Amino acid sequence: MSDSKRPQAGRLQRAPENFLGAGHVSEVTAGRRDFLRRAVTAAGAAALAGSGAARAQAAGEDVILKPQPYATSLGQPVAANGYGMPSRYEKNLMRRESPGLTRVSAASVAFTPLQGMFGIITATGLHFERHHQGWHDIDPSKHRLMINGLVRQETVYTMDELMRLPPVSRIHFIECGANTGMEWGNVAVPTVQYTHGMLSCGEFTGVRLIDVLDQCGVDRHKGRYVLAEGGDGSGMTRTIPMELVESGEVLLAYGMNGEMLRPENGYPLRLVVPGVQGVSWVKWLRRIEVGDMPYATKDETVHYVDLMPDGQLRQYTSIQECKSVITTPSGGQMLLDKGYYNISGLAWSGRGKVKRVDVSVDGGRNWRSARLETPVLSKALTRFNFDWVWDGAPVILQSRAIDETGYVQPKINQLRAVRGKRSIYHNNAIQSWQVAAGGEVSNVQAY
Amino acid sequence: MSDSKRPQAGRLQRAPENFLGAGHVSEVTAGRRDFLRRAVTAAGAAALAGSGAARAQAAGEDVILKPQPYATSLGQPVAANGYGMPSRYEKNLMRRESPGLTRVSAASVAFTPLQGMFGIITATGLHFERHHQGWHDIDPSKHRLMINGLVRQETVYTMDELMRLPPVSRIHFIECGANTGMEWGNVAVPTVQYTHGMLSCGEFTGVRLIDVLDQCGVDRHKGRYVLAEGGDGSGMTRTIPMELVESGEVLLAYGMNGEMLRPENGYPLRLVVPGVQGVSWVKWLRRIEVGDMPYATKDETVHYVDLMPDGQLRQYTSIQECKSVITTPSGGQMLLDKGYYNISGLAWSGRGKVKRVDVSVDGGRNWRSARLETPVLSKALTRFNFDWVWDGAPVILQSRAIDETGYVQPKINQLRAVRGKRSIYHNNAIQSWQVAAGGEVSNVQAY
Repeated sequence: MSDSKRPQAGRLQRAPENFLGAGHVSEVTAGRRDFLRRAVTAAGAAALAGSGAARAQAAGEDVILKPQPYATSLGQPVAANGYGMPSRYEKNLMRRESPGLTRVSAASVAFTPLQGMFGIITATGLHFERHHQGWHDIDPSKHRLMINGLVRQETVYTMDELMRLPPVSRIHFIECGANTGMEWGNVAVPTVQYTHGMLSCGEFTGVRLIDVLDQCGVDRHKGRYVLAEGGDGSGMTRTIPMELVESGEVLLAYGMNGEMLRPENGYPLRLVVPGVQGVSWVKWLRRIEVGDMPYATKDETVHYVDLMPDGQLRQYTSIQECKSVITTPSGGQMLLDKGYYNISGLAWSGRGKVKRVDVSVDGGRNWRSARLETPVLSKALTRFNFDWVWDGAPVILQSRAIDETGYVQPKINQLRAVRGKRSIYHNNAIQSWQVAAGGEVSNVQAY
Repeated sequence: MSDSKRPQAGRLQRAPENFLGAGHVSEVTAGRRDFLRRAVTAAGAAALAGSGAARAQAAGEDVILKPQPYATSLGQPVAANGYGMPSRYEKNLMRRESPGLTRVSAASVAFTPLQGMFGIITATGLHFERHHQGWHDIDPSKHRLMINGLVRQETVYTMDELMRLPPVSRIHFIECGANTGMEWGNVAVPTVQYTHGMLSCGEFTGVRLIDVLDQCGVDRHKGRYVLAEGGDGSGMTRTIPMELVESGEVLLAYGMNGEMLRPENGYPLRLVVPGVQGVSWVKWLRRIEVGDMPYATKDETVHYVDLMPDGQLRQYTSIQECKSVITTPSGGQMLLDKGYYNISGLAWSGRGKVKRVDVSVDGGRNWRSARLETPVLSKALTRFNFDWVWDGAPVILQSRAIDETGYVQPKINQLRAVRGKRSIYHNNAIQSWQVAAGGEVSNVQAY
């Protein structure tokens, strides 16, 4: 390249004469992602044929050739508000409540918009919410955690005292036990935000509960269960087996994604119970009692029980089994043309690491393995990606996760054969998205 | 435990008679973290002797024994604003500008408050900012990326086209080359927010630059460098060696921590160059040109060069060498009493993974290894924690990181012996915090 072709810093360079304009991706022969190149070239050619592409080309030339206002003006100052917010162009990506799901919004769900998200860390402002009596912004200087029951020394901790103890930081998913619950009987909701959006993943920081219990002289021989009690008005109380606590995984957490928990996520203190359904991650945590048997509280006897076909109820079904979902393309989205698409989704298991994710683009007849993004962590979301070229014919897209125990995510009819159609909780079935000939993606059930 | 002792769901249980009150952590003999228990017991006893502890105890009993307003009322509804924000009690933890650092705030720095943060993921709203001509909120539908220079087919991409290509998601740190730059000559700023706060870490999602260049038919034989150009008015242009691009690590990123980049972090597109100083992570990225030699732009010849003792300037010193810092206790904080403290901090290396972090509590005479939180990822922040019992005497706290290449973070006098005192960039020296007898922590230089 000659020096005369090199752009001067701060000046826009004129596009060269062989510049073809926006939207066109040319065919080349050298290189190592030939499949991708050919696929995108086909898509590009199709796109150029449409009127949208012509507009994009014109706009593209405009942007490239003419200085934009933001290239010729002084921008906004740093730290204008001290705390950053998303772009005004992203306001549509928000937590949403499913209208009418519960009698009041304070006892409802705000779903995470999985269809527009990336990677495994959930944007903190979009972390799903599920409250039983609304959320509160509690003054941490007045908050206390009481440890009582089968301990030598019953103790009340301030937040300062807890935060002075040795912390750990770990990335884990949290999923409501009722996630995908609307799909037990039939196709109930149109988008992945509402089918799977009671799911988030973050880096939690806190103290290991077992360390605090040991500090209080817990009787580990008799004390085989703990009760976790929240500080809000719902009287949320859940039993956790001491075995889980002894694993060192259960945390008294105050931090999420680098900062203090958000109020709607339990600020200033919540329980983190990796692999277990979200209701056990008790928010605004005020008390841990050590006992010798499960506590059979209302939230583990009346609620959060699985109604079986014979009318019996499964209790204490806490572990979130291996599950996955394609987040894009997903229900409510539209494929605008044929050609290359990246199929992306999330997989997770309450039993450990995800070992493999298979994707089917023909309703489950054939499966190929997806790429797993790293790191693949135990009891955390795992992001998968999969190359696909759509030929324009109707198809059904599915993903199927396998965890390190060898467990394979089941089909919905396999689950129903055992558990019927009336259960609300623990639906970890394979999700099917149908792509119609016109490109519309919708929620369907396929066997 | 008898049934009569078991609390009823939704009711507060009276504290038992042997309840000793807030702040007191009792001595116990059984258990496995004896060091911790004894240390905290000592701290607890000291705390109880003070007037603050008496207040805490009274407040604690009040909170535990009397129903709080939030336990007897309906709270806030879900998704009230669709996007969550920190608690009103955390408003003091914010990005802050160092006043007077630059002529206008649009060409300044907003530092990340490392002293109050946890884990390795930086809260997105607290990600540091460094702009040369302010930030803009650019309409992504109008944004374009042009690829030109030594490619067979010069091409302009829309955001939709880039986001349709196969993505990857990776966790990496970003550090401004001038981070800790004020400390070359002497102790310049009081807190870790200002000494080290041009440092953040996030999960970035985007397309591998090499894939896009290959799609354009890049001439890898002649084209050994790329130029990245930003869309704002500063004319930010930086050279990246093709070798780095070919490693597959350099990304055209649009996502951070699960959502689209924030405007102040380059929305809708920035370059991610893992291990390399932040200035090369060009924001509002509009153009990549492939060339046969470094471009010697203003931002790599006039700025971002290291002034050596002989008046010569080191150029193209891009890699951020291995470094660490204790974030708590740190300058401006105060130890309120003797006893147990968790020393926590961050370590990172632009050359790969952190292998070990040593901590000294005696100004560098003796060193012990800290615990590293997992995951330990290449070119990402690594969180370390370290148990320490303060006896009340003045001490100097230091951390020293070693990366997987065997490189050891240097002392400030070792760095100065080679590079003098007038350099602004690439100060990765060991940071010293002095704890005075009264508990005040301050920034000092120790050799």
